[in-house]
Amino acid sequence: MTPQTATAETETEAPLRVPVALGERSYDILIGRGLVEDAGARIAERLPRSRVAIVSDETVATHHLERLQASLEAAGVGFATILLPPGEASKRFSVYETVCDRVLEARLERNDAIVALGGGVVGDLAGFVAASVRRGMPFVQMPTTLLSQVDSSVGGKTGINVRHGKNLIGAFHQPALVLADTATLDTLPPREFRAGYAETVKYGLLGDASFFAWLEENHAAVFAGGAEREEAIAISCRAKAAIVAEDEFETGARALLNLGHTFGHALEAIVAYDGTRLVHGEGVAIGMRLAFDFSVRLGLCPPQDRDRVAAHLASVGLPTHISDIPGQMPPAESFLDIMAQDKKVSRGALTFILVRGIGDAFIERGVDPAALRDFLTDELASRS
Amino acid sequence: MTPQTATAETETEAPLRVPVALGERSYDILIGRGLVEDAGARIAERLPRSRVAIVSDETVATHHLERLQASLEAAGVGFATILLPPGEASKRFSVYETVCDRVLEARLERNDAIVALGGGVVGDLAGFVAASVRRGMPFVQMPTTLLSQVDSSVGGKTGINVRHGKNLIGAFHQPALVLADTATLDTLPPREFRAGYAETVKYGLLGDASFFAWLEENHAAVFAGGAEREEAIAISCRAKAAIVAEDEFETGARALLNLGHTFGHALEAIVAYDGTRLVHGEGVAIGMRLAFDFSVRLGLCPPQDRDRVAAHLASVGLPTHISDIPGQMPPAESFLDIMAQDKKVSRGALTFILVRGIGDAFIERGVDPAALRDFLTDELASRS
Ligand SMILES: NC(=O)c1ccc[n+]([C@@H]2O[C@H](COP(=O)([O-])OP(=O)(O)OC[C@H]3O[C@@H](n4cnc5c(N)ncnc54)[C@H](O)[C@@H]3O)[C@@H](O)[C@H]2O)c1
Ligand SMILES: NC(=O)c1ccc[n+]([C@@H]2O[C@H](COP(=O)([O-])OP(=O)(O)OC[C@H]3O[C@@H](n4cnc5c(N)ncnc54)[C@H](O)[C@@H]3O)[C@@H](O)[C@H]2O)c1
Ligand SMILES: [Zn+2]
Ligand SMILES: [Zn+2]
Repeated sequence: MTPQTATAETETEAPLRVPVALGERSYDILIGRGLVEDAGARIAERLPRSRVAIVSDETVATHHLERLQASLEAAGVGFATILLPPGEASKRFSVYETVCDRVLEARLERNDAIVALGGGVVGDLAGFVAASVRRGMPFVQMPTTLLSQVDSSVGGKTGINVRHGKNLIGAFHQPALVLADTATLDTLPPREFRAGYAETVKYGLLGDASFFAWLEENHAAVFAGGAEREEAIAISCRAKAAIVAEDEFETGARALLNLGHTFGHALEAIVAYDGTRLVHGEGVAIGMRLAFDFSVRLGLCPPQDRDRVAAHLASVGLPTHISDIPGQMPPAESFLDIMAQDKKVSRGALTFILVRGIGDAFIERGVDPAALRDFLTDELASRS
Repeated sequence: MTPQTATAETETEAPLRVPVALGERSYDILIGRGLVEDAGARIAERLPRSRVAIVSDETVATHHLERLQASLEAAGVGFATILLPPGEASKRFSVYETVCDRVLEARLERNDAIVALGGGVVGDLAGFVAASVRRGMPFVQMPTTLLSQVDSSVGGKTGINVRHGKNLIGAFHQPALVLADTATLDTLPPREFRAGYAETVKYGLLGDASFFAWLEENHAAVFAGGAEREEAIAISCRAKAAIVAEDEFETGARALLNLGHTFGHALEAIVAYDGTRLVHGEGVAIGMRLAFDFSVRLGLCPPQDRDRVAAHLASVGLPTHISDIPGQMPPAESFLDIMAQDKKVSRGALTFILVRGIGDAFIERGVDPAALRDFLTDELASRS
């Protein structure tokens, strides 16, 4: 049986460990194959005498839930299980309310824990539930997508979407532990893996040119699995952890992590979060290429760097142009409207993450809306 | 015109100031007549360049909204106004969702502020909205009931009720400023004033015997208004601020503030939060008398202290017995069930705040459910 084999593997190979230094809210990210089978023991060690509510989605549950439940049972950790429909649509008020209710229904107490087993959707929703039931309960992230392993499970941002935009309601709530089992990625659809890869590339682009170069060399091995995969995830987590430690509540440097995201979020909103047309990481891939292109246009970035970025993203099969999104796209004005309501807006001025080149992103708080409109108009005209 | 008179008064009489020391989350509570008229200037000073959303209830708005709006206008602070139906029923999911939506609709940004003008219901709901819109916005409390001035506006607890119990969903979110305008209490119904007075008495009972004795002497003046009122509020806020500073997230000493509340919350749940039968502070009055009585029964507290407490609460017109609540009461078992789901429950054992006497409360984590059942059975039999 595969589960047992995996357990045997972990007992010999220790996972990689990335500490997130946030004072009394510090925690570890563990990265390795077989952490699902280890989860019970590790949770019991970190949160002694806790019961847990596992929150997962139906797709993830098919592949990985039983092994997690068995591991909790073996460690004597009582649990309830709450399953959501897969997809971005679960990050909404009514589901949040239902999950809160189910956690209370399971009579979890304030020192019990919420365990999120799934991608960023499960993590963001379950994290907000953990932040708000009894005004805050311990939270364990078990990310099962590449995107959530390198990004959403690190840093404590949680939340849901509302009609005004993505993630506009939520909380900062740090996990007590992150268990990133890289074996779970074996069941992830290639398209989702690629989407997560876009966020991995982001860390290179925003502050680590040598990591980007390493990815240009090693991307095939990262996709195929093996030690390079864990290494890429650990480097990404370390990069994010450093930024989060500097700016837990996103009042400054943390905004750098939004490279590609202002465009990306607008694209996601425009397709109404329809995952068949665009998943988050694909939006980010297009958004990063747009951020480089816009930076070139503003005379900030050499065009060669933009071309290298576009080439690398395309080489792994990621979209890089708005026209790569299937279906109709609205005019540039719609993008501007959506970006103006985006939470990165500050006092009416548009805030963007721009670049001086690969590995050198910065926060620009005074982007001229007219320049942006022109840029988007040309972009939409060029390929449609 | 009354507003102008009040403004004139404040300009000469400085409000009392109670600092709440919570590191980078520290803030001031200002207590005095006429702070509504001053609010615009004080908010602009504390949160420069912010716009605000005023959250209030329809009753409070009738009496005090216009003066607040005028004050904001005079100070050049832009605002939106969001009104709720008065009463505990507004502390629920659907209202929370609507208010979040209205705040986003008003296009408030992350550095803009939510201003709660009202009692504990408005403060708890608006505070949770402030905690969660854009993962946290600045929050200003303008409490207009005695209860909210001495209790709910201090300490950062926010939240809503669900079918499993009161305040089970929420956040710790400290205000940036608390403006307690004691003139607003002039329009408060006497019953609500008395309810708030119960929380004021609580500070004497839990840790300050001399304050309780002072209240026995001065309660008439506190009810009538005048300097004793502001003094009683300031002493209460100082007492709460000290406990909150020691234990912001209620992992220890802060539980002392629940004196009378485990019983009180159960009573509120049993009447289904029907404010015509029981308001929060009345539940606390009965709960405090029960806590003293239970402590006497356990041989912890001299009966004279219980009698003094009961006599003082009754002398101002507060209920002290379950049988003082109009309508039918269920059997003791129902209370136990509700208390077992209460958030103060820890790992199946009942936690209660008990007393060794007036001014000497302590946290007892191992209350015997059988002793409690006997006590409640006798209590329900004695007067019904
Ligand atoms: N909190 C943060 O800091 C942060 C950062 C980035 C993104 N996000 C959020 O993350 C979300 C996107 O996350 P995501 O891309 O992980 O999406 P997701 O959670 O929807 O997962 C993508 C799909 O893959 C499936 N899946 C997940 N794990 C699987 C596995 N191991 N095997 C097979 N199928 C699997 C899911 O059922 C889903 O259909 C967005 O809502 C985004 O806003 C949050
Ligand atoms: N967050 C905390 O730490 C904390 C502490 C204690 C209580 N609470 C909560 O506070 C709530 C009770 O607060 P409350 O007693 O202030 O209730 P409330 O807000 O419902 O106010 C009581 C009534 O008085 C009216 N009112 C308020 N101010 C008025 C004024 N100045 N003039 C005329 N009418 C006025 C209101 O419209 C309402 O009908 C409960 O929900 C309780 O859970 C919270
Ligand atoms: Zn992202
Ligand atoms: Zn109270």
